[in-house]
Amino acid sequence: MVRNPETALGDQKAAGVANARFFTRSGPFSGEELAAAAEGEFVPPREGAETGRRYVGIGPLQSAGATEVSFLDNRRYAPLLDATRAGLIIVAPAFAKRVPATSAAIVSSTPYLAWSRVARMFHPVPPAKPGRHASAVIGEGAVVPASCEIGPFVVIGNGVEIGEGTIIGPHAVIGDGVTIGRDCRIGPQVVVSHATLGDRVTLFPGARIGQDGFGFAVGPAGFESVPQLGRVVLEHDVEIGANSTIDRGSVQDTVIGAGSRLDNLVQIGHNTRLGKCCIVVSQAGISGSTELGDFVTVAAQAGLIGHIKIGTKARIGAQCGVMSDVEAGADVIGSPAMPFREFFRNVATLRKLSKKPGSGDE
Amino acid sequence: MVRNPETALGDQKAAGVANARFFTRSGPFSGEELAAAAEGEFVPPREGAETGRRYVGIGPLQSAGATEVSFLDNRRYAPLLDATRAGLIIVAPAFAKRVPATSAAIVSSTPYLAWSRVARMFHPVPPAKPGRHASAVIGEGAVVPASCEIGPFVVIGNGVEIGEGTIIGPHAVIGDGVTIGRDCRIGPQVVVSHATLGDRVTLFPGARIGQDGFGFAVGPAGFESVPQLGRVVLEHDVEIGANSTIDRGSVQDTVIGAGSRLDNLVQIGHNTRLGKCCIVVSQAGISGSTELGDFVTVAAQAGLIGHIKIGTKARIGAQCGVMSDVEAGADVIGSPAMPFREFFRNVATLRKLSKKPGSGDE
Amino acid sequence: MVRNPETALGDQKAAGVANARFFTRSGPFSGEELAAAAEGEFVPPREGAETGRRYVGIGPLQSAGATEVSFLDNRRYAPLLDATRAGLIIVAPAFAKRVPATSAAIVSSTPYLAWSRVARMFHPVPPAKPGRHASAVIGEGAVVPASCEIGPFVVIGNGVEIGEGTIIGPHAVIGDGVTIGRDCRIGPQVVVSHATLGDRVTLFPGARIGQDGFGFAVGPAGFESVPQLGRVVLEHDVEIGANSTIDRGSVQDTVIGAGSRLDNLVQIGHNTRLGKCCIVVSQAGISGSTELGDFVTVAAQAGLIGHIKIGTKARIGAQCGVMSDVEAGADVIGSPAMPFREFFRNVATLRKLSKKPGSGDE
Repeated sequence: MVRNPETALGDQKAAGVANARFFTRSGPFSGEELAAAAEGEFVPPREGAETGRRYVGIGPLQSAGATEVSFLDNRRYAPLLDATRAGLIIVAPAFAKRVPATSAAIVSSTPYLAWSRVARMFHPVPPAKPGRHASAVIGEGAVVPASCEIGPFVVIGNGVEIGEGTIIGPHAVIGDGVTIGRDCRIGPQVVVSHATLGDRVTLFPGARIGQDGFGFAVGPAGFESVPQLGRVVLEHDVEIGANSTIDRGSVQDTVIGAGSRLDNLVQIGHNTRLGKCCIVVSQAGISGSTELGDFVTVAAQAGLIGHIKIGTKARIGAQCGVMSDVEAGADVIGSPAMPFREFFRNVATLRKLSKKPGSGDE
Repeated sequence: MVRNPETALGDQKAAGVANARFFTRSGPFSGEELAAAAEGEFVPPREGAETGRRYVGIGPLQSAGATEVSFLDNRRYAPLLDATRAGLIIVAPAFAKRVPATSAAIVSSTPYLAWSRVARMFHPVPPAKPGRHASAVIGEGAVVPASCEIGPFVVIGNGVEIGEGTIIGPHAVIGDGVTIGRDCRIGPQVVVSHATLGDRVTLFPGARIGQDGFGFAVGPAGFESVPQLGRVVLEHDVEIGANSTIDRGSVQDTVIGAGSRLDNLVQIGHNTRLGKCCIVVSQAGISGSTELGDFVTVAAQAGLIGHIKIGTKARIGAQCGVMSDVEAGADVIGSPAMPFREFFRNVATLRKLSKKPGSGDE
Repeated sequence: MVRNPETALGDQKAAGVANARFFTRSGPFSGEELAAAAEGEFVPPREGAETGRRYVGIGPLQSAGATEVSFLDNRRYAPLLDATRAGLIIVAPAFAKRVPATSAAIVSSTPYLAWSRVARMFHPVPPAKPGRHASAVIGEGAVVPASCEIGPFVVIGNGVEIGEGTIIGPHAVIGDGVTIGRDCRIGPQVVVSHATLGDRVTLFPGARIGQDGFGFAVGPAGFESVPQLGRVVLEHDVEIGANSTIDRGSVQDTVIGAGSRLDNLVQIGHNTRLGKCCIVVSQAGISGSTELGDFVTVAAQAGLIGHIKIGTKARIGAQCGVMSDVEAGADVIGSPAMPFREFFRNVATLRKLSKKPGSGDE
């Protein structure tokens, strides 16, 4: 019998977080167990008996019930504390007193991290299901351990080497000679070529890794492609978002440093190098041969020209256009990029001048 | 015999609109039939006998002939009316008198809508061709009605439910538990997971729906992924463009309201909510937890930060950078966003000041 | 035996350019042979015997050895000449004297083009491997010459015509009626429909060609899709980057002129026309019905509104927002677009005014 999709839609709107159609669930857990995982301090409710209460799941402050865990991370949502019915709430010390009297709390100086670990206890990442789908095409000399999960219609080229426990999702295409570390998660419809991946690398659907960089010379009869002879190196624990594109290098490698995370629809040009634990938010682009230090943040839709250097811990604001080097620790925004303070001073100046009689259009 | 592609290229350049290689054709139709479909007023030609003339197809004003229908929607192209040989022209009342004397007209206060319906009469959307390609992989407990068209190399997960008449294009991957309504069109190489789709939803090639949102906490050894435990809900009649990405929610759902249309390469972050009939043009991005009312328009390459609210019928201009709430009905542009008037006044002010001796570089 | 990915990662970091896992190699070649291919002047080393020396490969100035060829194209890297140990260096005449005394040189007025050809001699593009993978699905009446390479899980529609020597990568989907010229390279997971491709066209992974343009009219019950009845025409030698999207026309064709190159994540709207040898850098977008002349350059993240004309050889800067016609040969930048000089004068003016006491925030 076909279930009425209309009804299904309605049902699931109401179903809230961690819908059982999509997410497996562990537990229940006591508040102390959860606090231990979160490395936070367990605080029983000020009113009512808490002894032996066990929690079965998580939810947002608006809808969590007496056996569910919730959290407050963003000051903007603090008023929700007053009305919540959540049984256990993870909060920073500053908000511990605003937790309702009948709710328990886990107090943590890093509440978002604590939340992350508690949510992960209830909903652990599903492990690889070892095996190869019969339709997968595996090249000559490819090393694919039995512990790997190889999905339908996967294409693995000649001489590919994959580490233990790695998942290759449906339709992924892994080009000749690529090496992939252990416990990686290669999403559906990812294409990887000319690349070397470390361990625990995650590629989301449609990521394109290792295609030719955008390099050509002007010849007498039109553009001539310049051979792109480097690789892409994704170090350990790198994550690349859906439909993002990372071109391989031309005369050196394109390198994404260990622990870096790129969001969706990000573009990385050839020969670019990111240090460790960089963050690049969606739709940002980094042009060829630019180098980022460690812990650099590039916000959404920012663009960096090629052949520049961005210092460690610099922060590039959303939609920023960076045309020259940025010093370590600097905060820049605007197009062209300038210090945050200067940018907002400029905005204020221009607004004032536009209003002044005689200097603007009125 | 291999046809010479050079010739094919030349041939088809000349072939114009609705090339028979790609589009099926209905008709012919009389002017009155077309006017009825268009809900417009049929006006016979001022000169020459029109009685019984039947139209066989559509074309642009520049090339349409005596048995073809054309239209004028953009004032910018009005001069083309003087030279057109189109037999029937759809126009707004203001242009009715400029229609050539030998052409018939359909006069409509909504000429683009009228055109849409006339063009659709000649070229109806091809219906689903019921059947499953032998190569498709269908999971356990999946409900896939016989009226659906399931293309080659499709992967449908366990427990998926699909409504009547839906088309799943080649290589699409539908994750475990996903529900899809009736008469949907899921394009080639789409990936959908952790999602619930209403009826008549259209996903263009390469759309990525339901992957993890970009959420992580800073842990002692690097970033730790925060579990993303919500879904994506696409309500009835939603359309998502090619290679666009919609992340699933973390502690609530990401929701795209009924009738909303997203163009290509659009990014929607986790927990974001769009109201009904919103428009998001290509390469725009909306960050996590932001809420749009109904009938909001976000133009190309605009970016919205997270956790803000955009009121009903607000219009966000191209490349706009929105950092705070926008009121219902407001028109904003610039980065940071400001009212249209203010933005263009600022532009004029700055131009004037840069030219003034002593205040600029010059 | 599973090779340790950790070690593999380390090994290959050291391995440098043109890693043998991924790239085949020709040669060795003499300096004169390479200079002839490069159409440059061979200059033997000023010190030491060069006679009979043969080169085996290429490398960057920092790491190339005595039997390797390197090049200098960007003035910024000129200091590297002092320390390089490269045996042969391709340089512009201005840098010929800075080549180390023990290195040979190829002096060329177009050193990047010369480099391109030398690198290509060592690493020629691998030819098509004729044959069809057994899993490919080929439609009725499709013309696919035996000289073509058709990868696993390819789907070729009814009536498709493909020229000699063309490569169709794994999972590519070619819709009914599409024509593709000879010696094209269609990458993995490309989708093409409603399109006509010339010869030597290259599509990188995930490119989406020919889907419906973003066109709809406001009807009484919501948006109504306007039929998109044109095609996409990619003329000879066009290249389209990874995950870029080109919509088909509505009442005329979307045309990309011969020799044009589009980078990754580029959006081209319906009915848009690019002339010959245009360049569109990553994440730029061109809205519907806009026309570009020949040799137009659109830099990264620029956006052009619809229905405008950009003259021959105009250059649109990065992140530029173009709202009106641009004259041939003009250089524009900013949002809204203005001449380069004016843009940077505005930037300087505003900076000065913001610092002036009394006019800014201080």
